[in-house]
Amino acid sequence: MTTQKDAKKWVYAFGDGAAEGDAGMKNLLGGKGANLAEMSSLGLPVPPGFTLTTEVCTAYYKKQKAYPKPLQAQVEAALADLEAKAGKSFGDANNPLLVSVRSGGRASMPGMMDTVLNLGLNADTVAGLAARSGDKRFAYDSYRRFIQMYSSVVLGLDHDVFEEILDDYKDDQGYELDTELNADDWQEIAKRFLAQVDEELGKPFPTDPKDQLWGAIGAVFDSWMNNRAITYRQLHDIPQSWGTAVNVQAMVFGNMGDTSATGVAFTRNPSTGEKAIYGEFLINAQGEDVVAGIRTPQVLTKASREAMGETSLSLEEIMPDIFGQLARTFQKLEDHYRDMQDIEFTVEESRLWMLQTRAGKRTAAASFRIAVEMAGEGMISRDEAVLRVDPAALDQLLHPALDDTSNCPLIASGLPASPGAAIGQVVFDADEAVSLANAGTDVILVRIETSPDDIHGMHAANGIVTARGGMTSHAAVVARGMGRPCVSGAGSIKINYKDGSFTANGMSIRKGDVITIDGAKGNVFKGAGTMTQPQMSGDFAVLMGWADKARRMQVRTNADTPDDVKTALRFGAQGIGLCRTEHMFFDEERIAAVREMILASNATQRIAALDKILPMQRDDFVEIFMLMEGKPVTIRLLDPPLHEFLPHAREDVEAVAKATGLGVDALMARASELAESNPMLGHRGCRLGITYPEIYEMQARAIFEAAAIAQKQSGVAPKVEVMIPLAATGEELAYLKERIKDVASQVSEAAGQKVKYAYGAMIELPRAALRANELAQYAEFFSFGTNDLTQTTFGLSRDDASSFLNTYLAKGMMDQDPFVSLDQDGVGELVRMGVTRGRAGRANVKLGICGEHGGDPASIAFCEKTGLDYVSCSPYRVPIARLAAAQATLKRAAKKKQKKKKITNK
Amino acid sequence: MTTQKDAKKWVYAFGDGAAEGDAGMKNLLGGKGANLAEMSSLGLPVPPGFTLTTEVCTAYYKKQKAYPKPLQAQVEAALADLEAKAGKSFGDANNPLLVSVRSGGRASMPGMMDTVLNLGLNADTVAGLAARSGDKRFAYDSYRRFIQMYSSVVLGLDHDVFEEILDDYKDDQGYELDTELNADDWQEIAKRFLAQVDEELGKPFPTDPKDQLWGAIGAVFDSWMNNRAITYRQLHDIPQSWGTAVNVQAMVFGNMGDTSATGVAFTRNPSTGEKAIYGEFLINAQGEDVVAGIRTPQVLTKASREAMGETSLSLEEIMPDIFGQLARTFQKLEDHYRDMQDIEFTVEESRLWMLQTRAGKRTAAASFRIAVEMAGEGMISRDEAVLRVDPAALDQLLHPALDDTSNCPLIASGLPASPGAAIGQVVFDADEAVSLANAGTDVILVRIETSPDDIHGMHAANGIVTARGGMTSHAAVVARGMGRPCVSGAGSIKINYKDGSFTANGMSIRKGDVITIDGAKGNVFKGAGTMTQPQMSGDFAVLMGWADKARRMQVRTNADTPDDVKTALRFGAQGIGLCRTEHMFFDEERIAAVREMILASNATQRIAALDKILPMQRDDFVEIFMLMEGKPVTIRLLDPPLHEFLPHAREDVEAVAKATGLGVDALMARASELAESNPMLGHRGCRLGITYPEIYEMQARAIFEAAAIAQKQSGVAPKVEVMIPLAATGEELAYLKERIKDVASQVSEAAGQKVKYAYGAMIELPRAALRANELAQYAEFFSFGTNDLTQTTFGLSRDDASSFLNTYLAKGMMDQDPFVSLDQDGVGELVRMGVTRGRAGRANVKLGICGEHGGDPASIAFCEKTGLDYVSCSPYRVPIARLAAAQATLKRAAKKKQKKKKITNK
Repeated sequence: MTTQKDAKKWVYAFGDGAAEGDAGMKNLLGGKGANLAEMSSLGLPVPPGFTLTTEVCTAYYKKQKAYPKPLQAQVEAALADLEAKAGKSFGDANNPLLVSVRSGGRASMPGMMDTVLNLGLNADTVAGLAARSGDKRFAYDSYRRFIQMYSSVVLGLDHDVFEEILDDYKDDQGYELDTELNADDWQEIAKRFLAQVDEELGKPFPTDPKDQLWGAIGAVFDSWMNNRAITYRQLHDIPQSWGTAVNVQAMVFGNMGDTSATGVAFTRNPSTGEKAIYGEFLINAQGEDVVAGIRTPQVLTKASREAMGETSLSLEEIMPDIFGQLARTFQKLEDHYRDMQDIEFTVEESRLWMLQTRAGKRTAAASFRIAVEMAGEGMISRDEAVLRVDPAALDQLLHPALDDTSNCPLIASGLPASPGAAIGQVVFDADEAVSLANAGTDVILVRIETSPDDIHGMHAANGIVTARGGMTSHAAVVARGMGRPCVSGAGSIKINYKDGSFTANGMSIRKGDVITIDGAKGNVFKGAGTMTQPQMSGDFAVLMGWADKARRMQVRTNADTPDDVKTALRFGAQGIGLCRTEHMFFDEERIAAVREMILASNATQRIAALDKILPMQRDDFVEIFMLMEGKPVTIRLLDPPLHEFLPHAREDVEAVAKATGLGVDALMARASELAESNPMLGHRGCRLGITYPEIYEMQARAIFEAAAIAQKQSGVAPKVEVMIPLAATGEELAYLKERIKDVASQVSEAAGQKVKYAYGAMIELPRAALRANELAQYAEFFSFGTNDLTQTTFGLSRDDASSFLNTYLAKGMMDQDPFVSLDQDGVGELVRMGVTRGRAGRANVKLGICGEHGGDPASIAFCEKTGLDYVSCSPYRVPIARLAAAQATLKRAAKKKQKKKKITNK
Repeated sequence: MTTQKDAKKWVYAFGDGAAEGDAGMKNLLGGKGANLAEMSSLGLPVPPGFTLTTEVCTAYYKKQKAYPKPLQAQVEAALADLEAKAGKSFGDANNPLLVSVRSGGRASMPGMMDTVLNLGLNADTVAGLAARSGDKRFAYDSYRRFIQMYSSVVLGLDHDVFEEILDDYKDDQGYELDTELNADDWQEIAKRFLAQVDEELGKPFPTDPKDQLWGAIGAVFDSWMNNRAITYRQLHDIPQSWGTAVNVQAMVFGNMGDTSATGVAFTRNPSTGEKAIYGEFLINAQGEDVVAGIRTPQVLTKASREAMGETSLSLEEIMPDIFGQLARTFQKLEDHYRDMQDIEFTVEESRLWMLQTRAGKRTAAASFRIAVEMAGEGMISRDEAVLRVDPAALDQLLHPALDDTSNCPLIASGLPASPGAAIGQVVFDADEAVSLANAGTDVILVRIETSPDDIHGMHAANGIVTARGGMTSHAAVVARGMGRPCVSGAGSIKINYKDGSFTANGMSIRKGDVITIDGAKGNVFKGAGTMTQPQMSGDFAVLMGWADKARRMQVRTNADTPDDVKTALRFGAQGIGLCRTEHMFFDEERIAAVREMILASNATQRIAALDKILPMQRDDFVEIFMLMEGKPVTIRLLDPPLHEFLPHAREDVEAVAKATGLGVDALMARASELAESNPMLGHRGCRLGITYPEIYEMQARAIFEAAAIAQKQSGVAPKVEVMIPLAATGEELAYLKERIKDVASQVSEAAGQKVKYAYGAMIELPRAALRANELAQYAEFFSFGTNDLTQTTFGLSRDDASSFLNTYLAKGMMDQDPFVSLDQDGVGELVRMGVTRGRAGRANVKLGICGEHGGDPASIAFCEKTGLDYVSCSPYRVPIARLAAAQATLKRAAKKKQKKKKITNK
């Protein structure tokens, strides 16, 4: 192909065993385009075509939807080249070129964006296609499909109008199934479709294939900003700025009769990871038919057919030659890409065409098995294996699985579309799923089938059930991606949306009834089953072992109770990074004494109440120290405003008034005295310890006495770290350090053994980060409390942010919720400053993070880069953090190596 | 004197025309010690003595009240040296050395700390003193005074016990006045005092003068941390870390009969600034008698006696020689120090002794006159004159003065102790004054006389009246220092504390009754007079002119209403740095439409309500633009959370429900929907403009239409600056910039003239400062909103901080309230970053500050150093800011010069 001299290249061609792009150009060509080019270069049978780059999309939106000037000429040239390769021409009635126009971004967004197939058909070319293929029915069926798809995607007409025309026609003719329609019927349908377009738009359907092409290209670029795509990007953290590429490719037809077929496949089982070809196909169908879940497809291999007890034959049995070619191609692709592939193919009159390959999505369990086995096969190294598992996906492995359902009658069985178990109330509508979930209700979304419009509801639900669709249906693919358990194609379920109920196996389930689903087996039960703890053995254990070897940072946990501590230890926590003492105060037995302490009108009364709390706090700490067996335990002294501990409801107030002997009025007066305009910025954290020193003294005493007891009982000295919350100045730390030191001396003397502890500060205010040098004069360790640091740096109350943060995300004004993934530019800079300045103040200051970001892989990578010593996260996220930290170490090492290489090469 | 080799010098001697220190060593020797040394070196008659440095104090508190080891030896040596100079010896019964022990810090803290006089007396030495002076009465009077003072200050006994013994004795003897007691009486009193001490302490009063001395030194150091001193330091921003020095000085006696006297004087009138000796003395008295206000003193000069219509003769008339010496000394000191001096002197048997000199405190008016006149006399330069006026003191000049009191009967007249007028409710107790003032009530504190225990009440009161005491009484000195109007020595007032009332001139005034005082004339009126605007002419205008010439930064004002704007312009504002649009919304006519807007359930309803507000906002802006005549006007778009505009009281809710046609329940529901946990960090600022774009669009339209109208009416184009509040990201600014640009285009088109404006951001979040480079891509100016920036940087809600900030200040954990004076280390660093990064992003970005710090001199100096283009403050603080900014420029230039000099000298 020729391009204008000196002009930027906006279009890349592929096909015929060669390509202008390659798999490394994903950012420019999108995943689909880059891989089509790569497959083409590998000599695989890829229908020729060309890719409009993602930069076209970016330019298009920058210029209020105008294309870069040179684009038209480049597309014309690429089209001419394509015609030459295909040996067909656009609009040639004798030998018409038909093309597909598809989106393809850097990241896969299945089903989110628009596609047009069979483009190039008109009254002339459809006749040519009929003549050339010798199959008039196929030609007109393709034509009516094209009209319908183009009208909906490009012209903005309602899809259903065409369905109605078809249904009316079928009724008139007494047909039941589409297969009953013959060539003339389809010709008639196409005619009616065209008339409908003319009527609705007041102008005819475009007949010039080039007009059709530009219309389709524009529509695909436009679909980058449709609501579904925007939502999907938000859910999957895909920046808007990436844009999509557009692929124009010669059509091949899987619907040219019984020697044609179309299918999707995974080179290994994406659900379990087993090394076996896994996939589905349909004879005489176009690709969309498989994914849409309208017809239930057949499986590829004989072995899986037999395992499933299916009777419809496998591809291996029906087209053994093609299957052989496919199997060899799969191996070639896996060897080439060194990863499990997700593949689309079409067989056109016994000739195999490859339409797509990409790294296949997989469940967390499968990702472990595949990574471990590929390392075993020598295909990848152990470090690469560690890098292959998405830490975020681990979440689904770490939550309980279904254990006992003996009290739960089986309602229905379907396909094990996405593993894991879920319990929840039945809901039939995506919006309703969202609002119930927001209100804290666990829900299971039950649908006949799902569509991209249901995405938000699927995300909100604990699990998904569909009556129709295969293992690669929309519901299955999306549920696996989200880590939601899913049972698909549970055909016995009859849903009545109007009623708000479904029936199956003689049972009727209404909206709001509780069901239990087992996504690993494909079962749906009535009522709530019981759950079991996840097993962390096998491939999981092997790979986590490799990860732990690779990892530089320690992983600790945020744990307040012995139960939390046990879970975290089981998940491999190496210490407690944040033990919040206030949660211990809410226990029913204790809250009375806590309230007595708060309501005290002087220090003497306050101390009397604190004396009651002391032994309870001490017991808490003894238990935690014993469990931790000498691993570090960071205990944060009381943090929340005292107001939080007071009763708010009238009846609670009365009960407390009675219990404390205070009048209701006095109590209310004290409560309103303690109420604050902005409690987040109020009398909390170390400010409490400074105004009421006796509170922190009691806590310090409980900690130190517990340490002495635990040491005596176990012989192991607990590694105690006392952490001061919400410090803003060195003076605060200096003041409290003295008081705590005094308590430690007293306890040491009484216990007859020296209590050892480290003294440190939570860095959660901008000022603390800015003044880290000064704070490090007093603190032996820092723990970055990035939740509060995000709140103060942004001036953003987490509790109040929902009213506008969603607008920000929707308008693309923020790529990510900064409470989920650390804002590296702003908050991150304060962390970096805190690290640099903290080390300047005390060279060996120990540095960690204990905000919820400590369990977020992107934030963990930031912590690695920043040089923190450890991350701390909630118990269930410990394995995620272990893996993410290992990956961060490995990626950093790789980058350094690359840099070194560059320097050496110079 | 000799000191140990290699040991640090803790003690500095002075006297006999020489000294080890000088006036430049204030930080080390305290103000009093440094000036005693300086006067000594000048050859003035100063009783010999020595100073324990402020470093002793600092060391003393660092070491849990232990002295540095070498101190004792150094004091002994200095004492020996002092004995030699005085020709007297400690404990020598024939010729005893007596000393005073006084505190003396870097900054004056009048009356806050403890003093012991006549130290060295015991049974032996008192007899010697009697013999040597030939005045037994004087000797035993001094002795009993010493016992009483030492017992109270050093031994911690109650002062009143001694007063009771004296009163009982007088009753027994039938005496009325102290002067009726003869030598034997005082001897008996001293005996009884000693017995009382023995009884209370269970051990005798110390007789060894050296024991007495160490006791007194310790007591003075201890008094650095008494509550009065701590409060005073907080009020006057004196850091705790400075510590106090202790001065030990040979006693001279103003109470040795009628040829002895003691007095205080100012070299110019501290109230008006007039160049005339001003002061008071008492014959046969000790210094404390003048200050304590127990006897009413006589004036120094004949001229002032005659002007006041006094009959008691002046010093000039009674002791013309001494007066002559004094006058020459005053001139010498003023010439030497180049400033008005505040002097203490004593005449002992016709011999003049200088006990203290320091720069004299003065009213704001006096400071202007003195500075301008000294510049006129050639004593100082104009720039020095500008540096001589304390900008903070200006406050009292800028508030209204008393105008008409025709409806207010005169209750009493006293001394014009501190100028200015005040109106308020009578209160007799300092604590009550504080609590009433905190509740927002204007109060006048009325006392027989004031003591250091009343400081907090004086600070809280709008004005002070005392029945006793002269122009240099405690009440007068403190009130002038604080800028509180004060009438002292209004002798006709008879106060009954128990009753809570006073009578004078036949009128009875009860607690809570309103009175008006005129501190400039010394009058007290019943009821509330009317006030007049301050005149800014004469010396004020001259000096402000010099200041404006010296000043680099512009001074703008924070003004929301035309009234504010007028005041600010009168005070010399060069622009509006912050016009808060929300205050315009609270007007009774408008709030209904505002509420309608808030309660709208969709954009259409909201726009309809906004359309009602638009013309009102436009009118506001037209008026302001017309007043500003082309000076810059920075308008901040809506900032507070919408919840603030909704009614809260039940009856208001009902009224609004009726007016808006919404049900009460719907209204309450919407209000609770809008309520936030932390409104400071919530849905406010530009977040409102982004979620409800129509609000900012309305405001932008009102601004631009107003600009067009004002330009048409006046021919002058307003200089409009549209400011976005609470921005945290560049995206926010980018988004709003586009919308506002669109509105400007529309208005320009409709008005037929191009609306010009600058677009900028308020930098009030840490993230905004950190990302200033990015924000400057969109913003043409930044205004640092240091109120909110302080809140977020410290994580400190201004509304909630009082519950602990006072503890911090009291414990010395914070030197200053960061909302009053900018925290330069923390918040200041973010401002510096914002400046550097903002300029990196846009070289000519205009930079200002509009937090309340913009009116605080220390913060203004910081702004100068940081290179801001302007400061903006409330209208009444504009002159303060003008002066402070000028001083900052001058000081910086001086520093640069000094640096250059240093470099040149190298």
